[in-house]
Amino acid sequence: MITVLRCAVQGQGLHDISALVANAVSAAGVEESLCTLFIRHTSASLLIQENYDPSAKADLEMWLNKLIPENDPDYTHTLEGPDDMPAHIKSALTATSVSIPVSDNKLMLGTWQGIFLWEHRHRPGEREVVVHLGG
Amino acid sequence: MITVLRCAVQGQGLHDISALVANAVSAAGVEESLCTLFIRHTSASLLIQENYDPSAKADLEMWLNKLIPENDPDYTHTLEGPDDMPAHIKSALTATSVSIPVSDNKLMLGTWQGIFLWEHRHRPGEREVVVHLGG
Amino acid sequence: MITVLRCAVQGQGLHDISALVANAVSAAGVEESLCTLFIRHTSASLLIQENYDPSAKADLEMWLNKLIPENDPDYTHTLEGPDDMPAHIKSALTATSVSIPVSDNKLMLGTWQGIFLWEHRHRPGEREVVVHLGG
Repeated sequence: MITVLRCAVQGQGLHDISALVANAVSAAGVEESLCTLFIRHTSASLLIQENYDPSAKADLEMWLNKLIPENDPDYTHTLEGPDDMPAHIKSALTATSVSIPVSDNKLMLGTWQGIFLWEHRHRPGEREVVVHLGG
Repeated sequence: MITVLRCAVQGQGLHDISALVANAVSAAGVEESLCTLFIRHTSASLLIQENYDPSAKADLEMWLNKLIPENDPDYTHTLEGPDDMPAHIKSALTATSVSIPVSDNKLMLGTWQGIFLWEHRHRPGEREVVVHLGG
Repeated sequence: MITVLRCAVQGQGLHDISALVANAVSAAGVEESLCTLFIRHTSASLLIQENYDPSAKADLEMWLNKLIPENDPDYTHTLEGPDDMPAHIKSALTATSVSIPVSDNKLMLGTWQGIFLWEHRHRPGEREVVVHLGG
């Protein structure tokens, strides 16, 4: 079963999509399954991370921005704006797809795990995440 | 089919869980399948890497520790200890889930591939890895 | 259904295998499915990234080579050549498996997404990518 989630993002950073995904799983009514998420973009990615303390989220964003700064003089791919090439690199280092087992119609996430869409560009917009349930 | 592996870890580093996973696959007795591993934590991750030469393992650990040091003055998430925020970042850069095709009831790993649980915290403990077989 | 793709690579860099994978999916003739790719190596990896502008590809390769240089004096795993340990680290930071939902017998890739085999060693050779369809 395939569902496409359209996720509005306000700009760069980690957006919690755990509830959206949990709803898609719940609606499917499957006892046991594998839930695979796939993001259809190359400048945004997926992350399963600590969902409790906002400081962990802030530090993750800070650290990745420091590792992959804008305006590196070595970039040649600059026509789409200073945040575009860093966004591609950030996507390459994080996940385009993640798979989470489902039991009793619930995602088997750990206690502190949330599912995040990591938007790497500054502009607000809409991103598509495909949810596949099966297996 | 879902199995939860409880993996004891003695502290930070790469722990080979290949035999544990192979046993879970073997016990399932499936001819052809997809084996998906999912770790239920945000400060430990999964890695498929060289399983032969211990120096490769040691260098991987050394390199990641150098890239993501403890006590970075920019960290704000510090209440859970100096190894906690680096552990979240290390998890974000490596894998929370990996999928390995199964044929003839065996994981289709390459000759030199082992499956590792990468513990990023110092303290010993137990980590849960969910094994899903299906598809 | 499992297919093994043998991909010839001319040396280090991103090799577009989108057409090879699309052909394997098309040959399977499945309406709805999950396509999982798994690379059977520890010094090459998989990446889903921008497939349009060659400068994005070039910058990705440049950036990873800068982050993980050869001849780091801290490496101890050096017997297999100066490009071997960097290749293992690069593989660890990118993907060994990726899963892409399939609908109407087509991969649900975004408009600008291509599937790449990222060869991290210099020498030319052949790499094996397992394609699993199911779920």
